[in-house]
Amino acid sequence: MKRVYLDNAATSYPKAPGVAQAVYNYIENIGGNVGRGTYKNAYSAGQMVYETRELICNLFNFDNPLNCVFTSNITQSLNILLKGFLKNGDHVIVSSMEHNAVMRPLNSLKKSGVEFDRIICRQDGTLNPEDIKEKIKPNTKLVVMTHASNVCGTILPVEEVGKICRRHNIHFILDSAQSAGFLDVDFKKLNLSALAFTGHKGLLGPQGIGGFLIDSDFVKEVSTLSEGGTGSLSESELQPDYMPDKFESGTLNIPGIYGLNAALKYLSSTGIQNIRKIEQELTEEFIKEVLNIKGVKLIGLRGIEGRTSVVSLDFVGNDNAEASYILDNEFGIMTRVGLHCAPSAHKTLGTFPEGTVRFSFGHFNTMDEVKYTVESIYKTIKML
Amino acid sequence: MKRVYLDNAATSYPKAPGVAQAVYNYIENIGGNVGRGTYKNAYSAGQMVYETRELICNLFNFDNPLNCVFTSNITQSLNILLKGFLKNGDHVIVSSMEHNAVMRPLNSLKKSGVEFDRIICRQDGTLNPEDIKEKIKPNTKLVVMTHASNVCGTILPVEEVGKICRRHNIHFILDSAQSAGFLDVDFKKLNLSALAFTGHKGLLGPQGIGGFLIDSDFVKEVSTLSEGGTGSLSESELQPDYMPDKFESGTLNIPGIYGLNAALKYLSSTGIQNIRKIEQELTEEFIKEVLNIKGVKLIGLRGIEGRTSVVSLDFVGNDNAEASYILDNEFGIMTRVGLHCAPSAHKTLGTFPEGTVRFSFGHFNTMDEVKYTVESIYKTIKML
Repeated sequence: MKRVYLDNAATSYPKAPGVAQAVYNYIENIGGNVGRGTYKNAYSAGQMVYETRELICNLFNFDNPLNCVFTSNITQSLNILLKGFLKNGDHVIVSSMEHNAVMRPLNSLKKSGVEFDRIICRQDGTLNPEDIKEKIKPNTKLVVMTHASNVCGTILPVEEVGKICRRHNIHFILDSAQSAGFLDVDFKKLNLSALAFTGHKGLLGPQGIGGFLIDSDFVKEVSTLSEGGTGSLSESELQPDYMPDKFESGTLNIPGIYGLNAALKYLSSTGIQNIRKIEQELTEEFIKEVLNIKGVKLIGLRGIEGRTSVVSLDFVGNDNAEASYILDNEFGIMTRVGLHCAPSAHKTLGTFPEGTVRFSFGHFNTMDEVKYTVESIYKTIKML
Repeated sequence: MKRVYLDNAATSYPKAPGVAQAVYNYIENIGGNVGRGTYKNAYSAGQMVYETRELICNLFNFDNPLNCVFTSNITQSLNILLKGFLKNGDHVIVSSMEHNAVMRPLNSLKKSGVEFDRIICRQDGTLNPEDIKEKIKPNTKLVVMTHASNVCGTILPVEEVGKICRRHNIHFILDSAQSAGFLDVDFKKLNLSALAFTGHKGLLGPQGIGGFLIDSDFVKEVSTLSEGGTGSLSESELQPDYMPDKFESGTLNIPGIYGLNAALKYLSSTGIQNIRKIEQELTEEFIKEVLNIKGVKLIGLRGIEGRTSVVSLDFVGNDNAEASYILDNEFGIMTRVGLHCAPSAHKTLGTFPEGTVRFSFGHFNTMDEVKYTVESIYKTIKML
């Protein structure tokens, strides 16, 4: 059966050319840890890790590779940033489109006396940045926001949000899970205090590697969540306070970093604007077609403007889970059904608790696949 | 130049046959996330992850695969267990041979009112389990201990420690970083409450994947350190309290798990006792020879009994860093010099702050490599 992968918002597939080979080559032929051996292979891995920090900095217009921290995924990055910074009495502002990678840590922080307010977005997922001002209180320390919705692809006005944060002296942390590798994500232009990223979605690297960039002033206000061996300051049982060791305890996912390195070089040589162009063409065609299909409702923005290549559909009056199952089982089309770890976003979009079927395109998808998917949706509706 | 890898205590190399290929095959040909898609590739990855939990359980004689949690490394596992369990007023007992993966989190927990006492080991790294009893106080909640020293290879009497813990109703967490894949590590026999493991040392898998096993009663007393999307209970902004989702937020290192899976199958088919036999023969020969070398002092136990294949040498009166450098640069022998992220162990062994040169053997090393290493040590001493 034909197989069409449309779950790129969960994890991209295929990965960038050379990613699997880079990981294989490290494991099979290089080996060695970073910062822990003096021998040549250890240096080689160390150089590759540092180069990957530089590539991340280039991608996000950030100038300090030592303030690029690697973690296992963006959830871990967000937990470190939120829990390391927020204290009893602090107030946080979020959008109503956030993923549980933000909302669950914040709910956990309630126990420590941290409070948060939610800017309710419009039903298409768009946010009026002016609404933030009304929520600002004397103890507001932070805005944390996704760059784009993982449910419906709506892009949030993070540049305006960043300006408001700067004006009010509030820190701003960006969740780039759904934008990195698709949109320009510019640390300086967005006035960020920290930027959380993951390697395995739009960056086209393997799962298991993520990280964050953090401003040199902000980092002084963020404590680490985990301590351990860093291969540095080994005479001390206290965690080093210099970067990136402060946040990187234990052995890094070096194979993952080799894979991410290959992916970032692919992104750089291909150009994100070229990737975006292809994804936009595919998404535009898909949206144009599904707007004509009776039996499905497009959730979120109805055009290509202001959105990513994530498209959610509601199979109105039918079970979305069954629709997704048929798409996979009968037509080989891989989507993701449900609430996408973002209940608040679905409440905003009016699709809670039934959820949606999410189609997320990558630039390795083709126009033929889009056409096949549209035809398959027509057939699926008849089978429901 | 001949290359001899003797840094297996940091990370094993080469990895088990098939590890790199399994990782490559997942990234290149399978893809898909776990527990997040309903489509077939997602199921396939999910099955592989579950099977790997079962393989870990088989290895450590544990019967509940859902209480096998994957993390990015053993440092993360230990941080979760220590910080999730210990509270203001709790007292902990450790040995003086612990790695900073234990000591740095405990020092950080001091700020939260957690106190700890250290059992001082003998100068060969051995521990008298009876010494623990003297340290037990009414508020002693936990003993956390490494199974074997990462500096000198001395095995600690963890079975006796486990019995004492059980008798006094104290939880016992084992750091198996230096024993898993070499010694029998039996969750039940050792009376453990939790067992922290890493995939990339004796288990012969890739870096980036570790985890822990946790007793069903103990888990109720351990809160999670990180929350986020779990692909489950997505209607809620609260972390699920069931296993393993409670501790596994965000996308897992699935390529790493595919690699670990291949490694565990290799261990199982080869037999740990056969691996240990080879490593012991190599270590015995190495120790026998280095005891004859004037200019180096063997640190820790002088025989093969009661130790792993980790051997530390002091190039008496010379700079150990220079010795390690010459061994690599002139003879291609990769060792690790310094304090090995275990300052307390070096204090116990009388090698603080100068450290040692550590030679750690794996079962892929050969007797010829041992002989070549011995000859190279003789030559290195002349060059110092």
